[in-house]
Amino acid sequence: MTDASGASSAAPKPARPRVGRVEPRTLRGFIDYLPERALARLRLLDAIRPVVERYGFAPVETPIVEHLETLVGAGGEESNKELFRFESPEEEPIALRFDLTVPFARLLAQYPEELKLPFRRYAFGPVFRADKPGPGRFRQFTQFDMDAAGSGEVAVDAEICAVLCEALTALGVGRFRLEINSRRLVDAMLHDAGITEVERQKHVLRVVDKLAKVGLHNVRLELAQGRIDESGDPIRGVGLEPDQIERIVAFLALGGDSRRAVLASIDSFLKPSSLRDEALAEMQELAACLDVLGLDDAAVPFVPSLARGLDYYTGPVFEMKLPDAPQFGTVAAGGRYDGLVQRFSPNQVSATGASFGVDRLLAAIESLAGVPPRRTTTQVLITVFRGVAREEYLRMASELRRAGFGTEVFFGKKKASLTDQLSHANALGIPVAVIAGGDELARGEVAVKDLRAGAAARAGIEDHEAYREAGKSGQVTIARTDLIRHIAGLLG
Amino acid sequence: MTDASGASSAAPKPARPRVGRVEPRTLRGFIDYLPERALARLRLLDAIRPVVERYGFAPVETPIVEHLETLVGAGGEESNKELFRFESPEEEPIALRFDLTVPFARLLAQYPEELKLPFRRYAFGPVFRADKPGPGRFRQFTQFDMDAAGSGEVAVDAEICAVLCEALTALGVGRFRLEINSRRLVDAMLHDAGITEVERQKHVLRVVDKLAKVGLHNVRLELAQGRIDESGDPIRGVGLEPDQIERIVAFLALGGDSRRAVLASIDSFLKPSSLRDEALAEMQELAACLDVLGLDDAAVPFVPSLARGLDYYTGPVFEMKLPDAPQFGTVAAGGRYDGLVQRFSPNQVSATGASFGVDRLLAAIESLAGVPPRRTTTQVLITVFRGVAREEYLRMASELRRAGFGTEVFFGKKKASLTDQLSHANALGIPVAVIAGGDELARGEVAVKDLRAGAAARAGIEDHEAYREAGKSGQVTIARTDLIRHIAGLLG
Repeated sequence: MTDASGASSAAPKPARPRVGRVEPRTLRGFIDYLPERALARLRLLDAIRPVVERYGFAPVETPIVEHLETLVGAGGEESNKELFRFESPEEEPIALRFDLTVPFARLLAQYPEELKLPFRRYAFGPVFRADKPGPGRFRQFTQFDMDAAGSGEVAVDAEICAVLCEALTALGVGRFRLEINSRRLVDAMLHDAGITEVERQKHVLRVVDKLAKVGLHNVRLELAQGRIDESGDPIRGVGLEPDQIERIVAFLALGGDSRRAVLASIDSFLKPSSLRDEALAEMQELAACLDVLGLDDAAVPFVPSLARGLDYYTGPVFEMKLPDAPQFGTVAAGGRYDGLVQRFSPNQVSATGASFGVDRLLAAIESLAGVPPRRTTTQVLITVFRGVAREEYLRMASELRRAGFGTEVFFGKKKASLTDQLSHANALGIPVAVIAGGDELARGEVAVKDLRAGAAARAGIEDHEAYREAGKSGQVTIARTDLIRHIAGLLG
Repeated sequence: MTDASGASSAAPKPARPRVGRVEPRTLRGFIDYLPERALARLRLLDAIRPVVERYGFAPVETPIVEHLETLVGAGGEESNKELFRFESPEEEPIALRFDLTVPFARLLAQYPEELKLPFRRYAFGPVFRADKPGPGRFRQFTQFDMDAAGSGEVAVDAEICAVLCEALTALGVGRFRLEINSRRLVDAMLHDAGITEVERQKHVLRVVDKLAKVGLHNVRLELAQGRIDESGDPIRGVGLEPDQIERIVAFLALGGDSRRAVLASIDSFLKPSSLRDEALAEMQELAACLDVLGLDDAAVPFVPSLARGLDYYTGPVFEMKLPDAPQFGTVAAGGRYDGLVQRFSPNQVSATGASFGVDRLLAAIESLAGVPPRRTTTQVLITVFRGVAREEYLRMASELRRAGFGTEVFFGKKKASLTDQLSHANALGIPVAVIAGGDELARGEVAVKDLRAGAAARAGIEDHEAYREAGKSGQVTIARTDLIRHIAGLLG
């Protein structure tokens, strides 16, 4: 018997102790990305980065781990509960970061000399939330954030919206809908409804944020005395009066054909106040900037019911959805957070930004895409024969790589037959195979097989013999010296 | 008084409780990458990836966190001690990964159907070691790994060496030296010296691995009865006899002008044995493959003294150094590990690979590079004037971005003067500024300033007035409609 550490607990040790086997398993709530999805993920990041850089955002990278005090309390109650907490070797309390925004606020406070304002940064990497895992909900997921610090002007919020839309367009995912609201407008509405106490306002926001998930009926119940959820647990209500609830519900339902029409309906709904007037003026300015940036009213609407869960937002908030893949929910979101840097610094630094949920976006793209994803980077598989020196194959591989082709020599099981090797190539979708036995090489020849031709010829054939014959198509024998030229012709 | 969690401990709560300020600080042993280094890092990863993909490696990504039992015991004593350990919400023991090789071995065992052998994967991301931080030694660092599974042939080890060299060449870092040795040769040497017990062999390897760090004298002491280190701590010795130590030291000093000359000297040094003969035959084959792949003897030598700290290596081992930046030590390393997958699976899967230490490599490149690093992605800064609608500037920015130029409107402090804005651009190395006040725009004009011209004209001038005048060079007024064409001319 051996334990998981590999140390044998049996008495007389053999010269090489048998290592205890460890069950290979991924941690609950975590995920392994195999090549198909990892390739798609990198393609996605590669597509977003140049767009974001054109808007003047520059990358930064902060550690996965932060002092606990840096994170706790920064995102609100929910995110406090979801922290992965542990200790440094010096026994300081530390935790895995739950987003990239709080570390950015820390950076702005920590490096005022190096990061001269205005400063725009992008960052991407894993973030962690120890919540209940579920379908599509993981405890580690990747965010891609872009944030602009140093200005309170809504023109910057408009640019954040523009970069989100342009990145989505670059990804070629089709239709998107970027909903915009304003915490200041919501604030004006809450005051209008007589809700002025901060904790109460936060509670209302948390309830409204669940609208899409739990529906209007449940939101009404939670704004009143609360309700019992599906699992039988009680959910505490805000305790509002019926007329307050009706006022909120009516506000959430406000709409219009255009951003300006929505603002007009809010204007006539809310009682005049300086809070209302300032919030509306800001949104008028935002609307004008969005117009100039070419973001049309239908794809980028103002939506009074949009809340956003995190506590730190202070101005415009955004949420991006894909109408053709609604099951994936929000694929990007953000907003203005003019107070967060003050958590770390006596200086007030205005900032706004947004974050792509890379894993969700990827899942949505996968569900929408018509083309099968790539499973390999290999374009040419050089098959091997017994008795041929490996150097022959390595030399071919070198030439092909130098010409720019992803190339692999089949270094696998020694007894793999040619059929096994070609099956391997077909299974991975490798388009071209090189076949060179000792006899061919002695004659100065090689065979090149276009595996796509075989796959195409086989499509729809059910007869076994005919299927085998069809598989032989696409193979030609050429001079060894013509190898690169021929393959360049096949792979364009 | 408020505590670090932001909860106020004062009795009567104000409407908006003042949030306790948190000191912005990076965790001990961790590092923040600001734009200058983050840009260089991404450039490095972008340069390595296509090289690795041409060799048929495909990306995978595994979680930052693993079950503790997956990691403990996989890398040897040292790495056990250096694990960041904590608990999942389900109270399972978990830890941050210390490398990317062990998670890869787990994948191979866990997904035998999805990852058909032979399989080549690359992966990059942060790994964690809770050891003593020091200059250039961090507790989180980035590795870029490439590994090939499914074959025990040394031709694959040769390809790993080739991809390392080609990636280094793509990075343009100048000279490199990839040292190669063989665990099997070392094994033959240990048997030759009468050291057959596994734990003792491991101990010798760990001592030899320190040769470059502590010097030959201290290695001798540690192979014998041990020594007292600089801090006064005793280091336990292996307890070898003097003749065993001399035999080992003589082996470590073996050399030659070429890989084959080194093998010849080993051949005549070691007493004949099947262990020796097999190990030498394998290295002869490796030498032949390296020749074909064009890796010359001087840059890629066989070095009998090369050890490598980790326990899991079983065949060839590699270590890459930069002769022009020796202070950064090993920038890439790896080797064959034919036993590691069996830790997780009843199936034996041969594998070999190597890993770039991205942070060290980056530091080395920085110290070698002649060109100043980029600090921004912005190529054009549009300066702003009071009283001009932000929409005017956003429109210009849109046009410039559509033409492919990294563009930022100066959205910063409202009272920033034109001089402040141009200083900001100069400090970041932004090459071009657009200057458009209300009057210019009314006339259908804008001014464009080539900031590089100003910088060039100023170089070496010490007189204050002359310096100011020189700064004015490179500015021209053009028609607003010519903006894109003019800037395209400046930025090529």
